[in-house]
Amino acid sequence: MNEEKLKYLLKQMTLDEKITQFIQLVPQFYEGSKYKGDKTGPMTDLGINKEIVQNSGSVIGASGAKEIINIQETHLKNNRLGIPLLFMADIVHGFKTIFPVPLAIGCSWDLDLAEKSAQVAALEASVSGIHVTFAPMVDLVRDPRFGRVMESTGEDPYLNSQLAKAFVRGFQGPDLENTPYRVATCVKHFAAYGAPEGGRDYNTVDMSERQLREYYLPAYKAALDEGAQMIMTSFNTVNGIPSTGNRKLLRGILRDEWNFDGVVISDWGSVKELIPHGVATNELEAAYKAIVAGVDIEMMTAAYVKHLSWLVGMEAVDEALIDEAVLRILRLKSKLGLFENPYRGADEAVSKKIIMSKQHREISRELATKSIVLLQNKYHLLPLQKEQKIAVIGPFAKSHDILGPWSWLGSKEEAIPLYDGLLEKVGAHSLLYAEGCEIEVGTNEQQNAALKIAEEVDVIVLALGESSEMSGEAASRADIHLPQVQLDLIKKLKKANKPMIVVLFNGRPLDLHSVSCEVDAILEAWFPGTEGGAAIADLMFGDKNPSAKLSISFPYSVGQIPVYYNHFHTGRPKNAPNAEEKYVSKYLDIPNEPLFSFGFGLSYTTFLYRNAKLSDRMMTVETPITISVDLTNDGDVKGAEIVQLYIQDVVGEVVRPLKELKGFKKVMLNPGETKTVSFIITEEQLRYHHSDLQYKSDPGAFVAYIGTNSYDVQALPFQLIK
Amino acid sequence: MNEEKLKYLLKQMTLDEKITQFIQLVPQFYEGSKYKGDKTGPMTDLGINKEIVQNSGSVIGASGAKEIINIQETHLKNNRLGIPLLFMADIVHGFKTIFPVPLAIGCSWDLDLAEKSAQVAALEASVSGIHVTFAPMVDLVRDPRFGRVMESTGEDPYLNSQLAKAFVRGFQGPDLENTPYRVATCVKHFAAYGAPEGGRDYNTVDMSERQLREYYLPAYKAALDEGAQMIMTSFNTVNGIPSTGNRKLLRGILRDEWNFDGVVISDWGSVKELIPHGVATNELEAAYKAIVAGVDIEMMTAAYVKHLSWLVGMEAVDEALIDEAVLRILRLKSKLGLFENPYRGADEAVSKKIIMSKQHREISRELATKSIVLLQNKYHLLPLQKEQKIAVIGPFAKSHDILGPWSWLGSKEEAIPLYDGLLEKVGAHSLLYAEGCEIEVGTNEQQNAALKIAEEVDVIVLALGESSEMSGEAASRADIHLPQVQLDLIKKLKKANKPMIVVLFNGRPLDLHSVSCEVDAILEAWFPGTEGGAAIADLMFGDKNPSAKLSISFPYSVGQIPVYYNHFHTGRPKNAPNAEEKYVSKYLDIPNEPLFSFGFGLSYTTFLYRNAKLSDRMMTVETPITISVDLTNDGDVKGAEIVQLYIQDVVGEVVRPLKELKGFKKVMLNPGETKTVSFIITEEQLRYHHSDLQYKSDPGAFVAYIGTNSYDVQALPFQLIK
Repeated sequence: MNEEKLKYLLKQMTLDEKITQFIQLVPQFYEGSKYKGDKTGPMTDLGINKEIVQNSGSVIGASGAKEIINIQETHLKNNRLGIPLLFMADIVHGFKTIFPVPLAIGCSWDLDLAEKSAQVAALEASVSGIHVTFAPMVDLVRDPRFGRVMESTGEDPYLNSQLAKAFVRGFQGPDLENTPYRVATCVKHFAAYGAPEGGRDYNTVDMSERQLREYYLPAYKAALDEGAQMIMTSFNTVNGIPSTGNRKLLRGILRDEWNFDGVVISDWGSVKELIPHGVATNELEAAYKAIVAGVDIEMMTAAYVKHLSWLVGMEAVDEALIDEAVLRILRLKSKLGLFENPYRGADEAVSKKIIMSKQHREISRELATKSIVLLQNKYHLLPLQKEQKIAVIGPFAKSHDILGPWSWLGSKEEAIPLYDGLLEKVGAHSLLYAEGCEIEVGTNEQQNAALKIAEEVDVIVLALGESSEMSGEAASRADIHLPQVQLDLIKKLKKANKPMIVVLFNGRPLDLHSVSCEVDAILEAWFPGTEGGAAIADLMFGDKNPSAKLSISFPYSVGQIPVYYNHFHTGRPKNAPNAEEKYVSKYLDIPNEPLFSFGFGLSYTTFLYRNAKLSDRMMTVETPITISVDLTNDGDVKGAEIVQLYIQDVVGEVVRPLKELKGFKKVMLNPGETKTVSFIITEEQLRYHHSDLQYKSDPGAFVAYIGTNSYDVQALPFQLIK
Repeated sequence: MNEEKLKYLLKQMTLDEKITQFIQLVPQFYEGSKYKGDKTGPMTDLGINKEIVQNSGSVIGASGAKEIINIQETHLKNNRLGIPLLFMADIVHGFKTIFPVPLAIGCSWDLDLAEKSAQVAALEASVSGIHVTFAPMVDLVRDPRFGRVMESTGEDPYLNSQLAKAFVRGFQGPDLENTPYRVATCVKHFAAYGAPEGGRDYNTVDMSERQLREYYLPAYKAALDEGAQMIMTSFNTVNGIPSTGNRKLLRGILRDEWNFDGVVISDWGSVKELIPHGVATNELEAAYKAIVAGVDIEMMTAAYVKHLSWLVGMEAVDEALIDEAVLRILRLKSKLGLFENPYRGADEAVSKKIIMSKQHREISRELATKSIVLLQNKYHLLPLQKEQKIAVIGPFAKSHDILGPWSWLGSKEEAIPLYDGLLEKVGAHSLLYAEGCEIEVGTNEQQNAALKIAEEVDVIVLALGESSEMSGEAASRADIHLPQVQLDLIKKLKKANKPMIVVLFNGRPLDLHSVSCEVDAILEAWFPGTEGGAAIADLMFGDKNPSAKLSISFPYSVGQIPVYYNHFHTGRPKNAPNAEEKYVSKYLDIPNEPLFSFGFGLSYTTFLYRNAKLSDRMMTVETPITISVDLTNDGDVKGAEIVQLYIQDVVGEVVRPLKELKGFKKVMLNPGETKTVSFIITEEQLRYHHSDLQYKSDPGAFVAYIGTNSYDVQALPFQLIK
């Protein structure tokens, strides 16, 4: 439907019909749904009626081609103007074929594969009737206590932005309108949801506007620039004002500065939450503040449908504001072709064929092998040799709970546990198994049984971690150790005096400083998705070579939070990790440095960085320079290295971080092979927000750093001449 | 010297003479000093020469009447215009008679006694030749990791402001010019030094300007309004700009908005630290940025004396700027009467008589009894009975390290350890002693010896804590437990199965959640000062009744930081500490609430709050209302209660804290006695910084809370009509 027709449609709509486009409800409310329970009670609770449901604009959380076709069909019969529903859902890291959690995908630094994972998710979702996914989450996170860190891609604005764009490309494709097997994206959570005080979900967010713009906003902007159709407000306050009622954020920055013309949606219930936040006295005021601030769709509360009509009648809200918002929603429906085909990709037969296809599982397996980070590997204990006898111990050895949070349509039964993955590589005679303990509880008997098999083998593989309920939404932890019972199991198994490899399943950076002393190797598997066990086995037996690098720092301990690589120098920097200095910025009891830093990850081979050089020591706005390095695979096996480029602005108008990621390249090398890796450095990469919030570069001294992680780099100084 | 004469003096000064007024050096550089070592080396290191020392403006860290008189005398002989030196030093919580650390004084909520302590410190300091103290530190702190939390008075802007004023009154007196036994104050550290990231001293500070103004700035302003003569810049950045080069802070807020016309001084070396911070390329630029930002005196670096003259010559810095700054320094010298009497109060004979006088020690003892917080007292274990046999165990049982950081002139030998204090109350036959362990190390033998005496007594008094080196400047801890060896000692002594009282000596809120389960009573003694042991004994035997209340929250664990009482509600508040709710703001593993909350502290008696009422449920700008409550001492002993008034603005233009302290009164009651305690609530108390930074009140609903601590209060709603 073209713009003219959309506007004509808008004209035909009554004010109430317009306003009901703003409400988003769960499928249970709809006549066509398979849910046949009581609808009246829930409607009364919400304060809505059947007419509102009939005129509603969108649905959250429906899935399945049959279900969605039925809801849409019935809806269109009852809707006066035949305006189709939009079906939205949280398709975060896979629909039914589950990929690693986003934080793990962040560690792959693999934009193509990240894009592909989103494309697969979009395909499975769209044939199941879904039009919009509430993804990607692009919130920058520096606090591992925050449960939803698993849904973020990490701590870096540049890497997050690149991945945000890859996900948008993957979900939406180049031509959303004409490709029914893609879904529209809704980037979230605007803004700064990843920075709650104390790491406690939904808690207060406070930072300077400069910090917000410099570090937290870029990934949202990147996703929108890549064409994301929607954006979701966050639950938190930003500097005292809840995002959902934050006019400066939603109109000032989003509409006026960024010219975003897509749809803004609240998070679940967050319009009404303006009341407990303490900026609205009642639902009427909440509705007023949200619409004026710029929220178009109200998810799962009814403040708009109950009060906007009155507010327009009283001329407190201009109907033009309502019209604009409705038109944005209608435009999105039109872009998705729903006026022509309200079912879009929904197809029960096709969905049965392609969902969880072999091909999709293979992509998930590949992405998992590229997301799992080898954190420690003493004595080259990994890869395992097939002739070794192995004890597989721990609550995650045979666990199917490896999909992670936000995998509500995933099938745990079809996920491959670690033990099954290993069994594919070696015979059962080589694999002894004991549970050792459960995730948070255990018995002496379990420990003893584990120790007994540990004594009979060549190597211990200990599968530890957090259940999927221990991270994700509303799942913040103040203690980021492994549960005590698992730490006790490690100590017990030390008695066997055998090489020990820990494989971790978890959704956040953990405090591993005691674990890393006690065991020989650590493989951070995160929640690796449907093919998890197979992917880990590929890596553990050397069929694949680890290449992932951390996209978030692992703190030395919880008392070090926040710790992140792109921090300031301070006026009294500690000169060396072990220097004995009194009046410098340090802790008495722990190092300043994280245990495992941003960009860090090991391989089974060794990469040499040689001949790092700049094409020139001076650059201008018009004449960029090139940095290059010769990268050699100095080991015996093929492997991929993620070469990282960081830049430091030595002296700024405001303090600039010690280094900032500005580029990366993943390079595959055969043993003995050398490739020259180069990056162009442009003036644009040197810009930052000044104290007056102007975004520009300053002439002067810079340092380019190239290397294998954020700490191990070679420094090359240069000058920007202006 | 009047203003006219000062201006005439200024006119006679050469540019170099003016600029050298800006440098502040340690006494070692001065000819008259008792330090007779090499001066040339240190001068060369700093880049200065003898002439600069001869023309310098002020001295840091000298003490002793004789020393200071000598330095001043020699200086005046060599100084062309006879401009006297200002002598400044860190007299923080006492000169030689040491009072409890400021955080402990904060817990007294006793403004009169806080003022008196400063007056005593001023007297001892001034007769020793000191003119200016680098106190009070009024930084708001929410992070117990920060070592310098002991020098702050806590987490509340109102309480901090009241104490800031009391200290200024005490140090300066009502008539600084004509009372030589007072010292000028230098409030510090401007701004927000108490909020370093990760609690790591000197680290980055970032917050919204609204947060800065609403919570962090009021106490500095209060101290200046009370007449503080100087202010010190902080080491940290504020939103990307180091305070020492932060023009918006030092000119925008301090000079233009607050009309402060006193002297601004850098912290130690912080002008030159603009270089490592990364906002200045070299000393020249550092000097430029600091003078332009508004720093008058440069402490212990020489950027000004080396470069300002050139900068004036190049017209990069206007000489008028120099003149203003010099005039401010000369004015302060004049205010202190130094042109008439350059030695001011310095008097060796008097100092010998009054320093550490009985009277001073008594004031210190009284303040200590009022600063020590009774955190837990199961089965009314305290006060002790004189007939009980007591085991005094622990590294602090006989330790003299009870003065705390910033007591450089204090005499540990003359401090009264806990054991000595107890011995004053009961005979040695009732007191068994064992060390148990040292502060951070211990042996089985020590533990066993302690257990042995524990088995022989009626009650165990366990004196635990942190050495004074474990808090204070550059002494941040990521782990805020007691050292492990002390926790082990508690466990060991549990075997004796005797009532156990822990007395804590420390400079920060600790994680006491396991300790509080294991022992019966906890007395938080902080670093109690010279009379510490005597004061604790007064309380332990019931000669005094504890009345102190925490001025800072004790977190449940380090993973809960920051935790403070005046937080926001969030949009998804947890309804009750033990409610089982999923999608609310909480941790999975610990409560949201601190272990011991702001305003909390026990007494040996019980106070009843009855008939809480408001004089009216409506108020206006012109007609304040009164809140009152009948307070009854319902126990058997006399005691003082700190009645606390909090107010909540229910709905704000921005989110308002759940409650904010707006008043408190300390009331002494005999057993059975009742007094009516009342507070006037005015519109002024309801003002806050709006999103546009305007400071004003909004009409609407408020709640007044009155009670014994920040959690246990009675709520009385009222309305502001405008």
